[in-house]
Amino acid sequence: MNHSEWIRNEFKKMSQDLGFLFTPREEIENRLVRIKTLMSKSNIEALLVIQKMDCYYLSGTTQDALLFVPLDGLPLLLVRRELERAKVESPLDTVIAMKSMRDFPLLIRNHYGRLPGNLGLELDVLPVKDYFRYQELFPSTQIVDSSPILRDVRKIKSPFEIRLVRTAGDIAKRLYADARSILKEGMTEIEFGGLLDAVAKRYGHEGLLRVRSLNYEAYSWHVLSGLTGGIVSQSDSPMGGLGLSPAFPVGASRKVIKTHEPILLDFGICYHGYQADQTRMYSIGEMPRKFINACNACKEIHDAVLEEVRPGVETEALFLKTLVLAEKLGYKDSYLGPPGLQSRFIGHGIGLELNELPFLAQGRSTPLEEGMVFALEPKMVFPGEGAVGLENTLVVTRNGYEILTPLENTIFQL
Amino acid sequence: MNHSEWIRNEFKKMSQDLGFLFTPREEIENRLVRIKTLMSKSNIEALLVIQKMDCYYLSGTTQDALLFVPLDGLPLLLVRRELERAKVESPLDTVIAMKSMRDFPLLIRNHYGRLPGNLGLELDVLPVKDYFRYQELFPSTQIVDSSPILRDVRKIKSPFEIRLVRTAGDIAKRLYADARSILKEGMTEIEFGGLLDAVAKRYGHEGLLRVRSLNYEAYSWHVLSGLTGGIVSQSDSPMGGLGLSPAFPVGASRKVIKTHEPILLDFGICYHGYQADQTRMYSIGEMPRKFINACNACKEIHDAVLEEVRPGVETEALFLKTLVLAEKLGYKDSYLGPPGLQSRFIGHGIGLELNELPFLAQGRSTPLEEGMVFALEPKMVFPGEGAVGLENTLVVTRNGYEILTPLENTIFQL
Repeated sequence: MNHSEWIRNEFKKMSQDLGFLFTPREEIENRLVRIKTLMSKSNIEALLVIQKMDCYYLSGTTQDALLFVPLDGLPLLLVRRELERAKVESPLDTVIAMKSMRDFPLLIRNHYGRLPGNLGLELDVLPVKDYFRYQELFPSTQIVDSSPILRDVRKIKSPFEIRLVRTAGDIAKRLYADARSILKEGMTEIEFGGLLDAVAKRYGHEGLLRVRSLNYEAYSWHVLSGLTGGIVSQSDSPMGGLGLSPAFPVGASRKVIKTHEPILLDFGICYHGYQADQTRMYSIGEMPRKFINACNACKEIHDAVLEEVRPGVETEALFLKTLVLAEKLGYKDSYLGPPGLQSRFIGHGIGLELNELPFLAQGRSTPLEEGMVFALEPKMVFPGEGAVGLENTLVVTRNGYEILTPLENTIFQL
Repeated sequence: MNHSEWIRNEFKKMSQDLGFLFTPREEIENRLVRIKTLMSKSNIEALLVIQKMDCYYLSGTTQDALLFVPLDGLPLLLVRRELERAKVESPLDTVIAMKSMRDFPLLIRNHYGRLPGNLGLELDVLPVKDYFRYQELFPSTQIVDSSPILRDVRKIKSPFEIRLVRTAGDIAKRLYADARSILKEGMTEIEFGGLLDAVAKRYGHEGLLRVRSLNYEAYSWHVLSGLTGGIVSQSDSPMGGLGLSPAFPVGASRKVIKTHEPILLDFGICYHGYQADQTRMYSIGEMPRKFINACNACKEIHDAVLEEVRPGVETEALFLKTLVLAEKLGYKDSYLGPPGLQSRFIGHGIGLELNELPFLAQGRSTPLEEGMVFALEPKMVFPGEGAVGLENTLVVTRNGYEILTPLENTIFQL
């Protein structure tokens, strides 16, 4: 059978029967209107969208493609592989094949009658070698950085996007409940996480999380028990864990989980690319009072931030408020990491990637806006002993917020 | 407790007890000698190694760090996070903290007495924005591309590296044997893969594979059953599968696995960062004769390549030989994908990343050398029906090759 015919005739029904949601046309059109407003403000004549999540956001497909978005005129999706799937997945009208990058300027000229005077590319992620290639292909076009406006447009989530994050949160709720019967004394951290991961996938988790960075890798989950919770590693988070080897020095290890230890489960769930991030504590038997108290302090800090969340509030002010509260509660040297290694953020924007805007951080202030989605994660670290934390993902609403991760807010003690 | 003291006193023993192998000093020293020879040939005065796997290769750690390697003098590892772990993990003598990129030129000048005239950076992966930053920091230094020599030095594996790939292959052998008892009629592809993944992690698989690319994501495993095997997607491989959503359009889907279908299991294993890639076929009850015949053809092509593998043989010649053989066997329109969508490679170098040198591909010829490790993967695709394939990872030896993935070479029929 011919592959293209099969895709044209069978793919849509089969994939929808098996759970695929395609991004609706109005959704893509709204996003394009919003990015064009930002292009206009920044005097950008056209975008060439090269990064997979930016391209998915504006086209609805993650097939191997480049998206050309002129300020005036309709976008053009240039597909390397696989064209027929891209045509089904994307609601854009013009989806064509591109065999080679060499053909690219000619395709643009033929389609639009001219090449743009400037062209926005995502210079925060585009490799230098590719940049040189684009300079060769468009010698008369000025290349400018489109990443600020793409990050900006993506920071406000639509109801469609919020629904997908909420579905991810619902998957997490089931998973965290099941974890109570999966966790057993004597399991290693990696065994426990592996079993949870299999359940999460059965519930719809897509397995990988994504992060916008060359070197920062997104682990879908972390299981830290007892003293591995007290270990800092390369990741910009309060605790890193021991990991499995010098090649994977973060997250779950082969340490055996024991009774009465604080067990931190930070398991991100991804559904149609949209991520919900959450952390809860478990213990087999009661954990020492020190950790229970620290859990309570995390909850107090978490709730104090929530009280303030609404449009217009400055993110840095929220972060600084938590520093004061943590000190008042007696956790100055444990809050967000051990002294000298403390993280400088209490929340991170989340959506298609784990490091979206806004950051609730020191030195990166921005007012909260309706539709922003972020993970809020107060954590306490005690080197040589363990760590505790609490994390939820929420959306800023017109008057406040809505929690998208409806997990029971408790220590799961077995 | 103080975190740094805990790391200095406890971390090494604990991590080794839990399976960490640290890269030996002689290993790092040999790699540095080899990269310096290539630097000298390319007239590069110093490297600034920014990419995580390049840095791991030359330093032994994946902590958040930059490695400065002067042609004359000893290397300097500049660590952002976490310094004390990097000191334990890396056998390099000079491992120091770097608080901010701003301090970097001064650190180099203080340490070496001068800045280099040129500086090699990995321009195949370095983001443009970071490149501009380095140009600002080093206004009098010419920035050149170090990626060709780094890829070149990494293509020949040492006995230490080959041992790690072999261990990954041994994990795979146990996993593929266990898969016979895990696979059940009525499971979905993602369920089956998820259960395998939990077992693989228990056996030592580190969960993530790595690939050197902005947009190409490494899935650790693919389970394709019946007609999902016939679906091509964005990945440059003969078949992509259906996947879970437009955001993850590759690999396992929610399709239920049925009896008599060809079930393709392509599960990559990672151990201390080193990857072994392998594919075998399963079926519940006998699969149709058409697929069994195609499996036999894959084995014939696989074995025909092996017969030729030895130092000096051109990789493109090996690839072209398989095209002729596939046509002779009657698989011209199925070999490596359906017509118009056929992949142009039969093997890829593998080690810390899935797309290392050499490629056994059209248009990228290179002579095989002792110590090269690559995955060899003939596959056949039948749109609307299914796919079959066979894959092993092997190392080129002085007179031939050694298979590093000692899985039974058979169809696992239940």
